Amino acid sequence: MTNQSVRVGLMGMGTVGTGVYRLVESHQEDLSQQTGMNIEIARILVQDKEKKRTIDVESDLFTDDPDSLLQDPEIDVIVEVMGGVERTREHILAALQQGKHVVTANKDLMAVHGGELLEEAAKNGCDLFYEASVAGGIPILRALVEGFSSDRITKMMGIVNGTSNYILTKMSQEGGNYEDVLKEAQELGYAEADPTADMGGLDAARKMSILSTLGFHVGMNLDEVDCNGMENVTLEDIEYAEQLGYTIKLIGIAKQDDNLIEVSVEPTMLKHSHPLSSVHGVFNAVYVYGEAVGETMFYGPGAGELPTANAVVSDLVTVVKNMKLGVNGRGMVAPYKEKKLKKDEEIFSKYFMRLLVDDQSGVLAQITQKLAGYDVSIEQVIQRPHHLEHKAELIIVTHQSSKKGIQEVLSELEKLEHIEEIKSYYRVENGD
Amino acid sequence: MTNQSVRVGLMGMGTVGTGVYRLVESHQEDLSQQTGMNIEIARILVQDKEKKRTIDVESDLFTDDPDSLLQDPEIDVIVEVMGGVERTREHILAALQQGKHVVTANKDLMAVHGGELLEEAAKNGCDLFYEASVAGGIPILRALVEGFSSDRITKMMGIVNGTSNYILTKMSQEGGNYEDVLKEAQELGYAEADPTADMGGLDAARKMSILSTLGFHVGMNLDEVDCNGMENVTLEDIEYAEQLGYTIKLIGIAKQDDNLIEVSVEPTMLKHSHPLSSVHGVFNAVYVYGEAVGETMFYGPGAGELPTANAVVSDLVTVVKNMKLGVNGRGMVAPYKEKKLKKDEEIFSKYFMRLLVDDQSGVLAQITQKLAGYDVSIEQVIQRPHHLEHKAELIIVTHQSSKKGIQEVLSELEKLEHIEEIKSYYRVENGD
Repeated sequence: MTNQSVRVGLMGMGTVGTGVYRLVESHQEDLSQQTGMNIEIARILVQDKEKKRTIDVESDLFTDDPDSLLQDPEIDVIVEVMGGVERTREHILAALQQGKHVVTANKDLMAVHGGELLEEAAKNGCDLFYEASVAGGIPILRALVEGFSSDRITKMMGIVNGTSNYILTKMSQEGGNYEDVLKEAQELGYAEADPTADMGGLDAARKMSILSTLGFHVGMNLDEVDCNGMENVTLEDIEYAEQLGYTIKLIGIAKQDDNLIEVSVEPTMLKHSHPLSSVHGVFNAVYVYGEAVGETMFYGPGAGELPTANAVVSDLVTVVKNMKLGVNGRGMVAPYKEKKLKKDEEIFSKYFMRLLVDDQSGVLAQITQKLAGYDVSIEQVIQRPHHLEHKAELIIVTHQSSKKGIQEVLSELEKLEHIEEIKSYYRVENGD
Repeated sequence: MTNQSVRVGLMGMGTVGTGVYRLVESHQEDLSQQTGMNIEIARILVQDKEKKRTIDVESDLFTDDPDSLLQDPEIDVIVEVMGGVERTREHILAALQQGKHVVTANKDLMAVHGGELLEEAAKNGCDLFYEASVAGGIPILRALVEGFSSDRITKMMGIVNGTSNYILTKMSQEGGNYEDVLKEAQELGYAEADPTADMGGLDAARKMSILSTLGFHVGMNLDEVDCNGMENVTLEDIEYAEQLGYTIKLIGIAKQDDNLIEVSVEPTMLKHSHPLSSVHGVFNAVYVYGEAVGETMFYGPGAGELPTANAVVSDLVTVVKNMKLGVNGRGMVAPYKEKKLKKDEEIFSKYFMRLLVDDQSGVLAQITQKLAGYDVSIEQVIQRPHHLEHKAELIIVTHQSSKKGIQEVLSELEKLEHIEEIKSYYRVENGD
């Protein structure tokens, strides 16, 4: 008996596209055992058909015309790994309207247009899967949608940007400062020439918006994620954190209390005992807390040719299995909960702050009084001499305080005569 | 529009059964949003109908007659959380033959009769899911079957027994010896009165047999898992390991090289940098290495009422979704690979050994010569004075050596005049 063939149009032949091609070709037999179908890469959209490739691909598979994939009735599935947002959105809409299933690794696209695209997919009875868009090789979207389908997820925390985690790990382990470590990472090809999206938290925010949509069953918008980068994390902060038993990580946090949601990306001090604190280098991890399941964590490579390709091809396998069963586009659960976002006065956390102050009596009393005025109570204070004469450094860790209270108190403190500078402040997560 | 109802027969109302009942009742609305069906627990099989329960359940749901669930044509799904093997196997076979779908948390059953039961399920177009049987709340079976469907898994390592991990963690963190810590754990209810299956590795072996079947696509039998318990791990070994940068854990290891498979459970020294080495207490974790994805780890609670119930009810949700789509029993991939097990001479690892020897010249030379004779080369030797006069303790860490070579050389060493005792030996995993 010969298996039926599924014809795939591959849009993009960069790193991930090459990995997808490699996996499909080399695992042909396993894939057909699992799906009962043959998977054939029938056409590949590239910008430059003549470009030299690192793998051997029949040259007549290449095209630079999107329509030769999107409008070809013989193509069943589009695998989109070319990146980009607006034009790519149009391509995917066109594919779905032609009844083609879509697998994409494109977090930028899904974070902005995911809702619209998934609706269009459902309307046309098509699958649209995007496991690779969050945390590369880690099957975290499946875990949320299927593994925890009967649970209520109340918290997700993610190290979902490998580049910034690599930089923070290097700074913390080897003591380099941000600019030097970034430069080295760029030279090694670990960081982009323009590092803004990675370091500024936008890339992580996109992923947190996707995770929140799936975990909380609401339609989360990217601009509802409060996004703060890690460009200003200093070696001093890292060392202070270390002394207090914390590691600084760029963390995406999505929390839900009494159906009120907060989602942010920010450099955060994590207690050493927190499972995320030992996620180093380019690795990603997503910590999920569910009312029933409790604490879980999913760890693995966040990027790279084959890890990401594995997520893409595993989605492709699901599409093909669904084709075999005739149930494409029917397994999806659209967001069904009303989205209510917390206001800043409803977001609570511990905070760390580091102040440069005049070293004279009465200053600490003045500060603690200010804090008390905004309901910010203190868990820990450390005062250290500073190399500037007559100055001292003051480290304060607060109890749970509202984000609004902290922001207001910091702007009040700035005005105090004896406070030279607010050096830094961080959200603190103990895992409680 | 009123949703259609799915009627569930719950077999067992112990810890997990209670959790399943709680979750289904309290999450009714979420479950029906996700499945488009109402899930109703229609009957509950218990041993004692009159027993006082911790939750409020209508008393006419209880029955002590299995047939009133198995033979009732109105019951669509059987959820089996009563435990036991032979009689339970008969019940599940009967359920499947009646066309009922089955969700079970029963690792003992699945490790021994899984192949037969899955075949019967397929024959009758029924789903048979068992996510809860391995690592409680961690959706690891889904990850293997779906998340890594396009990858080739070459290694799985699991801390899949929470009780023994709790004991080892306590010994290592607080310095108690095995008997004392076990006794305390029994008093606290963390360990069973009969701890044999947990400490002796049988419980972990069952789970590794299930993981190997799914990860390697072969039908693994429980008696093919080489099973060694952790009852003989001493505080001294833990301390020596610590000094060398290792943690001792009871690890299930399943490896595949060139299609040759080895599966074992044994106390193992893990390099501190290995992600599994920081899994403490009753937590479970499964480390999965795939050719494409590389290193991943899945971490979470390995047992408990609600974590396990969450896995069971998430399986139930999948059954109900499949019912809605009419595709039950059609997604399963039966083992399709030929199973070839490694012989002891094909199993390679580093080893740690600790010997009590006569403290006199020439002894070390004699030992290293013996090792060389069996192709066991040495990475590290430490000699320490021993409190017994004229005795010394010898710690040897080998390079990769065959299991057969190690066993042969140990039995040779035992015969040497100047070796008083082979105190212990362990497999060593560096994560390379």
